[in-house]
Amino acid sequence: MKKNDEYYMLLALKEAMKAQAIDEVPIGAIIVKNDKVISRGHNQREKRNDPTAHAEIIAIRKACKKLGVWRLDGCQLYVTIEPCSMCAGTLLWTRIDRIVFGAKDPKGGALGSSYHLFEQKNLNHHPVICGGVLENECGQLVSAFFQNKRLLQSK
Amino acid sequence: MKKNDEYYMLLALKEAMKAQAIDEVPIGAIIVKNDKVISRGHNQREKRNDPTAHAEIIAIRKACKKLGVWRLDGCQLYVTIEPCSMCAGTLLWTRIDRIVFGAKDPKGGALGSSYHLFEQKNLNHHPVICGGVLENECGQLVSAFFQNKRLLQSK
Repeated sequence: MKKNDEYYMLLALKEAMKAQAIDEVPIGAIIVKNDKVISRGHNQREKRNDPTAHAEIIAIRKACKKLGVWRLDGCQLYVTIEPCSMCAGTLLWTRIDRIVFGAKDPKGGALGSSYHLFEQKNLNHHPVICGGVLENECGQLVSAFFQNKRLLQSK
Repeated sequence: MKKNDEYYMLLALKEAMKAQAIDEVPIGAIIVKNDKVISRGHNQREKRNDPTAHAEIIAIRKACKKLGVWRLDGCQLYVTIEPCSMCAGTLLWTRIDRIVFGAKDPKGGALGSSYHLFEQKNLNHHPVICGGVLENECGQLVSAFFQNKRLLQSK
């Protein structure tokens, strides 16, 4: 399969399924540099009791550890759901080149849906943003997770 | 000494000095619950090669680990410098009660200086924010750090 955005988003979706398997909100992320996956992460907020344990942050911290720097110039992040303000703020610090996300998050999405963090003044770094890659697949995974939760709670 | 905002900010300043001692930008934070300090953190971004290793995030993760939850209801954060978007975004998730900061950060401060993250729509949690506690002391520590850096670089 050609290594395009859909290819990498499928890998992020695979990560999201790992979150689903441990009853976490199914969101996954990977970081790519020079056409190679250098880190992967899936949401583990409940398991770790850590509000920062979003898929993106886990993947970012792993990538930085691997590269031995706290900057991610030349890297791209693929994440199944639009990043929140915490994750978008972290991505700004990393100076990552490109952010690709699957489904929008109308409630908390910080890259255009709820608001746009990168439109603030004083920014000297503007990553390329690309949304909507495998949007339905990424969105449906999360919708189904919450539908199932509500169903279980109503019983 | 009475346990007021200045008292706790002095403890955060003590943390900031720990960062200074290891040549990190001198910013410190503590988290208080029921008048007890439950966690402390100082900036360790360079040392850990971790873009998320801000004083606030370190203190938040420690507090959550200690409490066994990823929410910080009933807690207050004291930090020497106004939080950035990453830290402010994390604080939103924790549902912390109150955020007290020392000096403003005109360039990247996300609680009013550069922009105000908590003024976004759709928020269902609004922590109390109090800025300017020991403002000069907190700000001068960081200013002196950068002045010293520039001086060393110019030699």
